[in-house]
Amino acid sequence: MNATLTDHYPTRLLAPGPVVPRTHPTVWGGADDGPLTAAELAAFDGSGYHAEQALLGPEEVRALQAEARRLTADPALRGDERTVVEEKSQEVRSVFEVHRLSPAFARLAADPRLAGRARQLLGSEVYVHQSRVNYKPGFGGGPFYWHSDFETWHAEDGMPAPRAVSVSLALTENHPFNGSLMIIPGSHRSFVPCVGRTPPDHHLNSLRTHSVAVGMPEQEAVTALAEQAGGIEQFTGGPGSATFFDSNCMHGSNGNITPYPRSNVFLVFNSVDNTLTAPFGAPAPRPAHIASRDFTPVARDAER
Amino acid sequence: MNATLTDHYPTRLLAPGPVVPRTHPTVWGGADDGPLTAAELAAFDGSGYHAEQALLGPEEVRALQAEARRLTADPALRGDERTVVEEKSQEVRSVFEVHRLSPAFARLAADPRLAGRARQLLGSEVYVHQSRVNYKPGFGGGPFYWHSDFETWHAEDGMPAPRAVSVSLALTENHPFNGSLMIIPGSHRSFVPCVGRTPPDHHLNSLRTHSVAVGMPEQEAVTALAEQAGGIEQFTGGPGSATFFDSNCMHGSNGNITPYPRSNVFLVFNSVDNTLTAPFGAPAPRPAHIASRDFTPVARDAER
Repeated sequence: MNATLTDHYPTRLLAPGPVVPRTHPTVWGGADDGPLTAAELAAFDGSGYHAEQALLGPEEVRALQAEARRLTADPALRGDERTVVEEKSQEVRSVFEVHRLSPAFARLAADPRLAGRARQLLGSEVYVHQSRVNYKPGFGGGPFYWHSDFETWHAEDGMPAPRAVSVSLALTENHPFNGSLMIIPGSHRSFVPCVGRTPPDHHLNSLRTHSVAVGMPEQEAVTALAEQAGGIEQFTGGPGSATFFDSNCMHGSNGNITPYPRSNVFLVFNSVDNTLTAPFGAPAPRPAHIASRDFTPVARDAER
Repeated sequence: MNATLTDHYPTRLLAPGPVVPRTHPTVWGGADDGPLTAAELAAFDGSGYHAEQALLGPEEVRALQAEARRLTADPALRGDERTVVEEKSQEVRSVFEVHRLSPAFARLAADPRLAGRARQLLGSEVYVHQSRVNYKPGFGGGPFYWHSDFETWHAEDGMPAPRAVSVSLALTENHPFNGSLMIIPGSHRSFVPCVGRTPPDHHLNSLRTHSVAVGMPEQEAVTALAEQAGGIEQFTGGPGSATFFDSNCMHGSNGNITPYPRSNVFLVFNSVDNTLTAPFGAPAPRPAHIASRDFTPVARDAER
């Protein structure tokens, strides 16, 4: 574990600890640094998220849908560690590192509509910490319990500060009833420590079932955040819509009994000034396809 | 099983059977028979449901909330067969026959805002086939898979025809994300036979976990109904809002990971011209607290 840096956000504790107020900024850039307006940046600072309808056009989405299908069906990837298969049905749930597996997703990661907003929010060059395609089937796709991604990335990957932003790009329609993303507004300002030491190779289980207790906040803490916020935000929208959200947002999603599956591309941009060190709460770092250790900045559009 | 009456809606089959078009009317009364307008009756005929915001006032709802709490906490009812307890947490999920257990719920069942609409829709006097209070907790309340209530009432209780209407009255806020009721519009016009013979005492399991296959439609049939309808309707609203829906509507609800629990009163009115016979698809009828065999009509307001 990390013994060289001060740990501003201790977690994976032996007993429940108090919520830690965030000490780092949320928005590091200004209105001159990218496509988001000053009002949009201020709103992101307060809520922790920014939603865009139709960030990508229908043609672009169709091409990405086809590419996602190709990757989940690729027999060469089936036994690969980058492919997460559901235990019961043996169906593919996620494919990781798609920005390295596929030129189409590499172009998407470098697209100024995505990377440009990330650079602006983080006030620096950015690199891709994680990328994946998710597929949540209809008729019983399971829930994802409340969690902060930064809590995991800090504890298990050694990310020092919450200076990272995620983009969830919809490839299918997000209805209110098919397990769409929920975020507690303003929760990114509170770091909720989780109880329980991280077992070795924890990610092999946590990515598959999400029913393990380590890395999950106490119900009381989630309730308090929702009460403070006065509610929960749920993100709906058509294919091509995108939600940008701070790495420390408390988020989750319900299960889905409807016939409508849900598929998205998930991209995490981290600041090049926030690169990974040793894990702060795990015996060993996770593999590079889950938490990249190649910190090469995403190329700017003009330089491609 | 029932050998005396023609079975218009065969179910609990040994192999998947075709969907049976409904032969009975949905709306049996006219605009002069009750509070619903001709337009509202026509809409119910087409969709199978009718939603009312604030059917009950805040004071009335508070009184019913207190009465519901009293019933779920009553130690005398704890070991009673009318109380359904969740296996894992041992928390009360439902209390049945509340219109007999409590004068407040008896008054609610006879309230013309509820019984009057039921009489109008069914074109006759009505009696209470089933009543219950449901409690679905936050942080992991489970889903209820798609089903038609009439399929169960026909197979297991001996209800001849879909001439019954249910009322779901909200005691808490129904958000889009805390497991609120979903109905496939127009599905009440198609009877979907279910596969699998009904085992003895099936209700002891089906009410508790809702994860058993008997009485559940095939995914293909649900998908076809949703495609035909062009979507799914989800019912949201504050405490005191109510959804009236036909007994053969295909409905269900997602699980709930949010901190917001969901509680409602569920009342089923059956026509006195549609009283129970022997079950059409089960070895023995279910107990009377689940399917009443007292067919005494709900008293009209003026007569109370």
